[in-house]
Amino acid sequence: MPLSPEQQAEIDELRSAPTQTLRATAPGMEQHLYTAHPVLDHGFVRVIDYMGDDNAITQAARVSYGKGTKSVQNDEGLIRYLMRHWHSTPFEMCEIKLHVKLPVFVARQWIRHRTANVNEYSARYSILDREFYIPAPDDLAAQSTINNQGRGEALTGEEAERVLRYLRDDATRCYDHYEEMISDDGQQGLARELARMNLPANVYTQWYWKVDLHNLLHFLRLRADAHAQYEIRVYADAICNITADWVPFAYKAFEDYRMGGATLSSTALNCVRRMLKGEDVTQENSGMSKGEWREFKGVIG
Amino acid sequence: MPLSPEQQAEIDELRSAPTQTLRATAPGMEQHLYTAHPVLDHGFVRVIDYMGDDNAITQAARVSYGKGTKSVQNDEGLIRYLMRHWHSTPFEMCEIKLHVKLPVFVARQWIRHRTANVNEYSARYSILDREFYIPAPDDLAAQSTINNQGRGEALTGEEAERVLRYLRDDATRCYDHYEEMISDDGQQGLARELARMNLPANVYTQWYWKVDLHNLLHFLRLRADAHAQYEIRVYADAICNITADWVPFAYKAFEDYRMGGATLSSTALNCVRRMLKGEDVTQENSGMSKGEWREFKGVIG
Amino acid sequence: MPLSPEQQAEIDELRSAPTQTLRATAPGMEQHLYTAHPVLDHGFVRVIDYMGDDNAITQAARVSYGKGTKSVQNDEGLIRYLMRHWHSTPFEMCEIKLHVKLPVFVARQWIRHRTANVNEYSARYSILDREFYIPAPDDLAAQSTINNQGRGEALTGEEAERVLRYLRDDATRCYDHYEEMISDDGQQGLARELARMNLPANVYTQWYWKVDLHNLLHFLRLRADAHAQYEIRVYADAICNITADWVPFAYKAFEDYRMGGATLSSTALNCVRRMLKGEDVTQENSGMSKGEWREFKGVIG
Amino acid sequence: MPLSPEQQAEIDELRSAPTQTLRATAPGMEQHLYTAHPVLDHGFVRVIDYMGDDNAITQAARVSYGKGTKSVQNDEGLIRYLMRHWHSTPFEMCEIKLHVKLPVFVARQWIRHRTANVNEYSARYSILDREFYIPAPDDLAAQSTINNQGRGEALTGEEAERVLRYLRDDATRCYDHYEEMISDDGQQGLARELARMNLPANVYTQWYWKVDLHNLLHFLRLRADAHAQYEIRVYADAICNITADWVPFAYKAFEDYRMGGATLSSTALNCVRRMLKGEDVTQENSGMSKGEWREFKGVIG
Repeated sequence: MPLSPEQQAEIDELRSAPTQTLRATAPGMEQHLYTAHPVLDHGFVRVIDYMGDDNAITQAARVSYGKGTKSVQNDEGLIRYLMRHWHSTPFEMCEIKLHVKLPVFVARQWIRHRTANVNEYSARYSILDREFYIPAPDDLAAQSTINNQGRGEALTGEEAERVLRYLRDDATRCYDHYEEMISDDGQQGLARELARMNLPANVYTQWYWKVDLHNLLHFLRLRADAHAQYEIRVYADAICNITADWVPFAYKAFEDYRMGGATLSSTALNCVRRMLKGEDVTQENSGMSKGEWREFKGVIG
Repeated sequence: MPLSPEQQAEIDELRSAPTQTLRATAPGMEQHLYTAHPVLDHGFVRVIDYMGDDNAITQAARVSYGKGTKSVQNDEGLIRYLMRHWHSTPFEMCEIKLHVKLPVFVARQWIRHRTANVNEYSARYSILDREFYIPAPDDLAAQSTINNQGRGEALTGEEAERVLRYLRDDATRCYDHYEEMISDDGQQGLARELARMNLPANVYTQWYWKVDLHNLLHFLRLRADAHAQYEIRVYADAICNITADWVPFAYKAFEDYRMGGATLSSTALNCVRRMLKGEDVTQENSGMSKGEWREFKGVIG
Repeated sequence: MPLSPEQQAEIDELRSAPTQTLRATAPGMEQHLYTAHPVLDHGFVRVIDYMGDDNAITQAARVSYGKGTKSVQNDEGLIRYLMRHWHSTPFEMCEIKLHVKLPVFVARQWIRHRTANVNEYSARYSILDREFYIPAPDDLAAQSTINNQGRGEALTGEEAERVLRYLRDDATRCYDHYEEMISDDGQQGLARELARMNLPANVYTQWYWKVDLHNLLHFLRLRADAHAQYEIRVYADAICNITADWVPFAYKAFEDYRMGGATLSSTALNCVRRMLKGEDVTQENSGMSKGEWREFKGVIG
Repeated sequence: MPLSPEQQAEIDELRSAPTQTLRATAPGMEQHLYTAHPVLDHGFVRVIDYMGDDNAITQAARVSYGKGTKSVQNDEGLIRYLMRHWHSTPFEMCEIKLHVKLPVFVARQWIRHRTANVNEYSARYSILDREFYIPAPDDLAAQSTINNQGRGEALTGEEAERVLRYLRDDATRCYDHYEEMISDDGQQGLARELARMNLPANVYTQWYWKVDLHNLLHFLRLRADAHAQYEIRVYADAICNITADWVPFAYKAFEDYRMGGATLSSTALNCVRRMLKGEDVTQENSGMSKGEWREFKGVIG
């Protein structure tokens, strides 16, 4: 349960005080505002603010393309056209601000997406809470034997128990020592900016993260993907649900053209054309490496 | 008068339909929403949307700096502290979206600010309107004789008349030919993407421009500055007025620390210290070049 | 002929003075350094500097992916893997700096690519040359009747002649007046920053443009595409040739996976699978709109 | 000693094989190429590549400002002018690529500078080395009692010993368990992407970091500052030394105008003017808060 009673009370208060605005309002998003969606054992995602809706996308597109968009009769059709043709700037006209609580090793992946605004909790100034991500037994995956970046089956039995014990005990001991080192009770107390170096990468941090819709969708494409690490994917999944309520047309187009789509190389397209003409195309005569061919077969079923 | 009756009717309609929202609302900004502030002879600036207020800045700062901000008792004090110490990320938590109509040569300067989202009217797809910036007589400045990038006094008499005649006649003729070239009446009609090349740089274009508050203030510092070209400065001035109503604490701090402030070099600071001790510091013994010394004297009065 | 004898002499001198360096050197790129490749009637592209080569891409990838890259035995295979899986950061490790002379209306499209460094000739400070882009007769295209952003056949006969006459005469007259307005011979002379507004969008400007390889390839994908406007495509084509000599493995992978590839939506992939199973798929039962279906048929032949 | 004999041999080999190039070469930088400058107990900074030199800055400025720069007679004067007037784009024309080995908690601060290209060693793919930052006794600072983000004196005696013992023992134990968890000797072995979460923030990582000179100087201004955390400041100091050899004019201007300079607010400038006229200005009549006044007195001595 990631929220304290005080935090829940604050959320309830924020949600009880609507004001009037002349801005575009997305009804589906108003439902999410401030509410914390739990992720992992202590994390959450919650919407702090947003700008724009599906209509803000088409409004900007109509500025750019003027008469060029007249033939597309409705907003959904226009949004699909923009998504299909990689016209990204209209999607940049929407913005979202999230409050996210997440383990440090997840934050380190997340921050590599540079086109966003971030204010993170600073362990130079403040003391981190005693909260660590400990995987659920089902998520305690073995190293994949075929993929250097992948996971195999979940560990079981004694091995699983030992891993959980190490993670729990090491985090606890490191945090005990962190607290002891920064204490000024009967001693000087180590600088917080130094003491934090003793904390493991599963300690939780939190930040405000603000991003435009185009860059958000790019983040979701990479991080809600089956190849993303599970611990960041669950955050991306939570944000996907929020986005679907915020900009339903854009999200649906994103699912069709990005999440469910695939990019085929010139060589692969040529193979598709040959196969459709009835030719028996094999890896050997495809022009692809074994790895590419395996991926290609995965895509065209 | 830059707005057509249809546009004014649309603005009136948008302003007559408030909705309820749980988001942070800036009362001063609601007054501006959709309304067109005239700039130059045919241009305008109007707010289409915004995210956040002064409180959103301190809220993000308190996430980052946690206990470190407790000693600063109020929001205004904290915002001044952040501005003074160049803590820029909390200011990135606010966002504004403007609809701007502006001459192309102003747009070319403006677009050099890369950290923003833009959707511009496309002359590949659509036909530009017959509207050109013609300076008012007082703004018809001579080339500065001392500054390569500056202006001198306004032209007068026959010279001023000739300049205005050239600007008006050339724009009119170029536009007549633009229209004639793209016409498909009794001919094929030149592609719009080609015909536009005949239009001079004082033709008006328009765009949606979205930017966060930190980058907006950086833009304003450079473009509302006395050294900026007059024709972009009037846009910056109009946006300054809007920003002052949107985030009054942040704007006031910006005026004190940025617009009215100055950066002194190590050498200049050393001169100040010597002068305060009663030493007679001259350009010759200052360690500065003549240009630096002149600027220095301008700053310290 | 875009280069003056002085400029050619400068290039010859720069090319005659090699120095020793310990940096990675790309032999194919050394051939291009400083040489101006003519584009359009007065434009050019020339390489001023570069950083890195194909090896710099794999070197960075091996830092990131460590043992994960051991199974890929050679540099070309690794580069193809990176391109196929959208691992963009290793491509950011190469950088190129170009000097480009181009018409203003092309510069306005180009500058929309924000992730680059630019120093453009400033008409506030300096006087623009009397050079304008006038299309060759074959490039004097009519507006497409089926595509708002496209071109049809070239204009012919009297219509073509009239267009060329307008473009030439209007540019000449505007430039004559520009010169006359800024002249300080017997008059004050209008400020250069104002006078430039009288120049049409086919006047040439120039800039230094510096960009990393990842963003360069993104630019080339959009601007060397058949849907890009001809006048920017010829610049992209010239840069493609340079890039092919600079990083031959990366460029070849780019051609296969990006330029010659295509992204298929979830719906489109499903149609491919049905067709490969022998089903008769038509637009009506495809789940695609007519526009999507037409594009889909174009891709799969 | 951060480098293995194999790494040193590789550096020696790279440094022994100069090639010829037509590019601009910075002699001071050639001396640094590939050589590892030790930082902290196991870290280093080394230059992998660079583009441009002081001349590349003025070359780009002369493109932009054309005749506007003629009056500035020499390169150093022009570079000082550009730095003084915040003309940042010419400095963006130089680029540097560094290989840095650094503790994770330093990397987390560093990565907040978004305008750079990064390839970091991935602990999803590869196994991190058993190397941890343990502060030297003199750097084992107490928490400042007056500044939430600062350090006081070094810890001594038993308290210092206990801190060092905790840091060493916890790192060792966490790494032992990391190794044990990922081992596939007689067990499945935990996925590397999970096991890494047990490692503390003082474990070393490494990356390739590429940035333009303007953004590098911005990084150095913040991170070589006295208020920066010591553990990142030593990296910034090492890069300062490299930069001084690479672009000596630009670095010297940076030291004068940025590192040694200060920005005074409108209120502070007004106080300076009053003081120079002989007025007795105190905090009470200054218009500044106590904190501002203290900082102001620190600046003007």
